[in-house]
Amino acid sequence: MQELRKDPVMERWVIISTERGKRPSDFKPEPEDTPNPHECPFCPGNEQITPPEIAALRPEKTSSNSPGWKIRVVGNKFPALSSETELIKQGRGMYDVMTGFGAHEVVIETPDHLRQLDKLSVEEIRDLIRVYQDRTEALYRDVRFRYVLIFRNEGKQAGASLSHPHSQLIATPVTPIRVKSELLGAEAYFKLRERCVFCDIIAHEKETGLRIVFENDAFISFCPFASRFPFETWILPKKHELHFHASRDRIPEMAQVLKITLEKLQTALSRPQYNFVIHTGPNLFPRRGYWQTIHDDYHWHIEIMPRLTRVAGFEWGTGFYINPTAPEDAAKYLREAKPSAG
Amino acid sequence: MQELRKDPVMERWVIISTERGKRPSDFKPEPEDTPNPHECPFCPGNEQITPPEIAALRPEKTSSNSPGWKIRVVGNKFPALSSETELIKQGRGMYDVMTGFGAHEVVIETPDHLRQLDKLSVEEIRDLIRVYQDRTEALYRDVRFRYVLIFRNEGKQAGASLSHPHSQLIATPVTPIRVKSELLGAEAYFKLRERCVFCDIIAHEKETGLRIVFENDAFISFCPFASRFPFETWILPKKHELHFHASRDRIPEMAQVLKITLEKLQTALSRPQYNFVIHTGPNLFPRRGYWQTIHDDYHWHIEIMPRLTRVAGFEWGTGFYINPTAPEDAAKYLREAKPSAG
Repeated sequence: MQELRKDPVMERWVIISTERGKRPSDFKPEPEDTPNPHECPFCPGNEQITPPEIAALRPEKTSSNSPGWKIRVVGNKFPALSSETELIKQGRGMYDVMTGFGAHEVVIETPDHLRQLDKLSVEEIRDLIRVYQDRTEALYRDVRFRYVLIFRNEGKQAGASLSHPHSQLIATPVTPIRVKSELLGAEAYFKLRERCVFCDIIAHEKETGLRIVFENDAFISFCPFASRFPFETWILPKKHELHFHASRDRIPEMAQVLKITLEKLQTALSRPQYNFVIHTGPNLFPRRGYWQTIHDDYHWHIEIMPRLTRVAGFEWGTGFYINPTAPEDAAKYLREAKPSAG
Repeated sequence: MQELRKDPVMERWVIISTERGKRPSDFKPEPEDTPNPHECPFCPGNEQITPPEIAALRPEKTSSNSPGWKIRVVGNKFPALSSETELIKQGRGMYDVMTGFGAHEVVIETPDHLRQLDKLSVEEIRDLIRVYQDRTEALYRDVRFRYVLIFRNEGKQAGASLSHPHSQLIATPVTPIRVKSELLGAEAYFKLRERCVFCDIIAHEKETGLRIVFENDAFISFCPFASRFPFETWILPKKHELHFHASRDRIPEMAQVLKITLEKLQTALSRPQYNFVIHTGPNLFPRRGYWQTIHDDYHWHIEIMPRLTRVAGFEWGTGFYINPTAPEDAAKYLREAKPSAG
């Protein structure tokens, strides 16, 4: 069963996805994943184990679902949502449910089991960004997909169940609550000041310089003023832009800032486990209603969250975070961190 | 430094608490805590190691900060917030900050290092609930405290840094974002239907019976329809009530439902690590403005969240959760789980 259920009190949707059939005895601590290319479903030669290829960067002479690829996009074997389901919204007693309509894809970033994202070359990261953008654009052609989230989990603590370098993409039929909060917050700020809050943040951060990690002509990376986590780092395009996939002309700069920021985190924190998410604008369509100014007020960005502290009852209970490292200190460590060679 | 910072985009506050001085090298995996009563600051005989006693359940002949207590409340050694700070709100450039005013207390639940909450007797749990209520009531006398959250982390994965049974209490000068979402959601529901959404949930759950774990005359425990986590379980008083600390006349029933629910979780899931939080109403004071109907529309409750799955990039990025166990299945396992003797 895959189903979306809405919390009856607040606007939070939950995906109930019982494909993996979790009974109480299934929740045993997982063993650490050891690299074994013969068993890894993402390694070259094992293409038949994964669901079929949705897209790939591969030489023309090679055929789908065979080795030779540089980047490969496949369906998630245990998808949280599926586009084969018809989108039906209905009530169940006092509750609201939706069928598990959506998409859940895996982007295998490199054939090399051991080369994590920060170890890829700037050129390889450019290719990866292009694949991210192509998939987002393709999914946004279907107006039933309201939002596409690209995210990356590195390490078991960060939720990665396979260690082969990969990222994921989930397309949802509703705008997720955290994104909606950001959209509404940015809209409120724009109404008050007629300026994008993210553009103002960039200007302010450049002025003080206190929290900047790295910048080039087109992008800035910094530790946000109200960082939830120690060493949390955001990357923003300097030019105002709603959608991640529209940044086609600045892919080289984006690849550079992403690589350098990840390298600095890896050096300063001795290869921490981490998550990153790309917060892009929602899928716009004619009847989008109240988000009239969205092109002016929202600004896509990447949020990188190293997993250094454990989130406990207080954070779950309140949405309030306790961060033991001042963002100004974190940024200073990251500015000074010299990426190791290679 | 302790400081509250507001996210400039959305209404999320973060506590920057650098008391523990976290540099990059401080984020090493912590060793598992082994029970050693000589070194445990919460064990009897070590009362001088903790900050001074704020309250205690102890025989009259014993003196403060000495052994003999049954329950002990002390300040947190590394408080996230402190009541000795003056509450000052100010701007910093484009950002909003507040001094780290608040309170952070630890409730040591038993002198016995090894008896976790589910192993305490119903009578001992009654005493603990009374202490929780007394402390909440005492803090709510100060109108600068807008909210008191009581929470419990059991196990390292759940964020507990000491294994001696304890819970915590944090009083904040702002209503936390998740609580505010619940308050506003409950208010919107009440405006539409003139009924409390939580009362409606109780009626609906009793009617279907599908998700009930346990109930007695005064309380019901069930797996919520839109559970974020596998085996998430909520406890609600059947009588409509805004504040947890007002339930003085039903403490025995509350102790029973809490003990039985925790025992069932422990049996079904082989002692999972978990968090619980008590969501009570905010501190009311004359100029509280728009929450006019709050006495009618909000309903306190306990949320228990076993830590069975890892929260990954998707959840952080969206506030959208993927739950692999249907709440109906979880409730069935829990209903059938027989607490082990003792």
